Amino acid sequence: MQEMNCLSLRYNHKNKYPLSVLDQTLLPHQETWVSIKEPQDMIEAIQELKVRGAPLIGVAAALALGDFVTKADTRDIFLKWVELLRESRPTAVNLMIAMDRLKNVLSKCPTDNNHWQTAIKEEAESIYFEDVQLCKKIGENGAAVFHDGDRILTHCNTGGLATVGIGTALGVIETAFRQGKKLHVYVDETRPLLQGGRLTTYELDRLEIPYTLICDNMAASLMSQGKITKVIVGSDRIAANGDFANKIGTYGVAVLSHFHKIPFYVAAPYTTLDPHCPTGQDIPIEERKPYEVRGVRGSFGTIEWASSKADVYNPAFDVTPNNLVTGWILDRGIFNQEQIKNGVKQICGQ
Amino acid sequence: MQEMNCLSLRYNHKNKYPLSVLDQTLLPHQETWVSIKEPQDMIEAIQELKVRGAPLIGVAAALALGDFVTKADTRDIFLKWVELLRESRPTAVNLMIAMDRLKNVLSKCPTDNNHWQTAIKEEAESIYFEDVQLCKKIGENGAAVFHDGDRILTHCNTGGLATVGIGTALGVIETAFRQGKKLHVYVDETRPLLQGGRLTTYELDRLEIPYTLICDNMAASLMSQGKITKVIVGSDRIAANGDFANKIGTYGVAVLSHFHKIPFYVAAPYTTLDPHCPTGQDIPIEERKPYEVRGVRGSFGTIEWASSKADVYNPAFDVTPNNLVTGWILDRGIFNQEQIKNGVKQICGQ
Repeated sequence: MQEMNCLSLRYNHKNKYPLSVLDQTLLPHQETWVSIKEPQDMIEAIQELKVRGAPLIGVAAALALGDFVTKADTRDIFLKWVELLRESRPTAVNLMIAMDRLKNVLSKCPTDNNHWQTAIKEEAESIYFEDVQLCKKIGENGAAVFHDGDRILTHCNTGGLATVGIGTALGVIETAFRQGKKLHVYVDETRPLLQGGRLTTYELDRLEIPYTLICDNMAASLMSQGKITKVIVGSDRIAANGDFANKIGTYGVAVLSHFHKIPFYVAAPYTTLDPHCPTGQDIPIEERKPYEVRGVRGSFGTIEWASSKADVYNPAFDVTPNNLVTGWILDRGIFNQEQIKNGVKQICGQ
Repeated sequence: MQEMNCLSLRYNHKNKYPLSVLDQTLLPHQETWVSIKEPQDMIEAIQELKVRGAPLIGVAAALALGDFVTKADTRDIFLKWVELLRESRPTAVNLMIAMDRLKNVLSKCPTDNNHWQTAIKEEAESIYFEDVQLCKKIGENGAAVFHDGDRILTHCNTGGLATVGIGTALGVIETAFRQGKKLHVYVDETRPLLQGGRLTTYELDRLEIPYTLICDNMAASLMSQGKITKVIVGSDRIAANGDFANKIGTYGVAVLSHFHKIPFYVAAPYTTLDPHCPTGQDIPIEERKPYEVRGVRGSFGTIEWASSKADVYNPAFDVTPNNLVTGWILDRGIFNQEQIKNGVKQICGQ
């Protein structure tokens, strides 16, 4: 495979194990790279959120298999790992789509061993480079919605750390900012795992885009004071009717935006669209371990401030219905409610 | 003064310094009592949130002065401390009302030294015992709004730790639970200072009331699934038109309740009413230090996960307008929007 080098992931032929990922659980205090020696390492990295962000998960899983494929011996062993990786997180559809692409390539290959392995590697590579381009296009399409003086609220992390390009929602902000627009970003810290407080602030510092960090429960007060002019978030899966799943807390932000009449955008590559999923109610929502809510874990150690007996509800995602969304900013254009309701299959080319 | 002993505060004559407060910043891991040797200790305890909760702040400040009064020598020294305590936190009006009561007692006293000191002590005591009774009445009045099977969302801490009685919003829940109603409480963790995650869970564990802890941004998802049937919160100040200030995040919960058509109640003693404050816009909102949002501090130490350069917005409170409130549960009865708009001055007896 070619050399690859981005904020979240590296592929370097000089290393015994060429693929490594940045451990995002240790950010922003430690920049630790984790070597992926076999597919199981990637499954664990995904489940432990060392690798996170819907587009990145798909790309990283594909590259792990592209790297592993020569050691896989048989198609059956390869297909076993495709399935195991496919199931490592249930909500983000980009992972399933990437795994399906590798399976499709395999099914079209003659049984000549060398050839199918090369074809898998090339497909994994093309998933990587495609994501870079998708992010660029999302940014270019979306930048038009922001204007001088916009104060933009965002939730979770949707930048270079969530993709292998400039990101989705954060990529749109960056593109508009590079066009010279004066923007200010309000960053939801995004409990329980603090992807906003730890990762988005880290990226905005690097990009030198001005921002203000808030706790999730402060956004409503800012909105009531007129301090938020637009909202943009990413997505882990967009259903056929435009409903979408995203990091827990997104739905609340959408309701608050609706109440305060603030435009609310979702930005994603077409690989986040799931035409086979009729509505948001059909998207499986992952529930995670109670300790995430009882405290925090990070490079600083493990802290639990609530009783270890405390019953906890910890869904990783929530679902925002299509009627709360102003526009879907995709690599293929910006779509409004009418267009998305009728067009997800068409946008996907199905 | 008489002996006093409650969850949040103790007054014991056998001690050299009779008044002590439970350090709420160290809960739930450590139950450490802080001795109040002079009024400055109470100012620091209030500012550092060792003592918090609008009703408790008023009572604790009054007791600190009731204890100090014999050492105050002159009325002027006493009045200096009244003013300093009055200014220790700007939003909760209970503190100002308690300080004004002590000043009023003083202004009515003849210049005979012994007498004014005794009168101040007695007034401080009566503020304490009145709060116990106010909580009891709030609970009795409010319990009627809860029924078997209710799943109640609450925000911040409003129980015994926030008062010297059974609490306000949590006292209503406790009273209804003691009446045999089957209730389940959803507890917002309440970032940044985690009064829900640390304190309300601690109290519900002691009361043996079933609960589920959530991050603040999970409430909307629960509401959309029909899992919340009612919301009840406390207040730090209720303006003359019924708008009220409460812990940051309350306004967002009110908007979400409105959107999902879930009844939203606020519970408070009459000492939280401020007839001199026309609307919520006139309530001063305290902004606190950035480090509270950049991380967490507690008995476990100090952690900052966000960059120390990160710009932060950290209001301690927000304002909920009267039109989002279903009912004001006070010690003097339950009031609806029409009644509260016309009646705050009347309710206060002014």
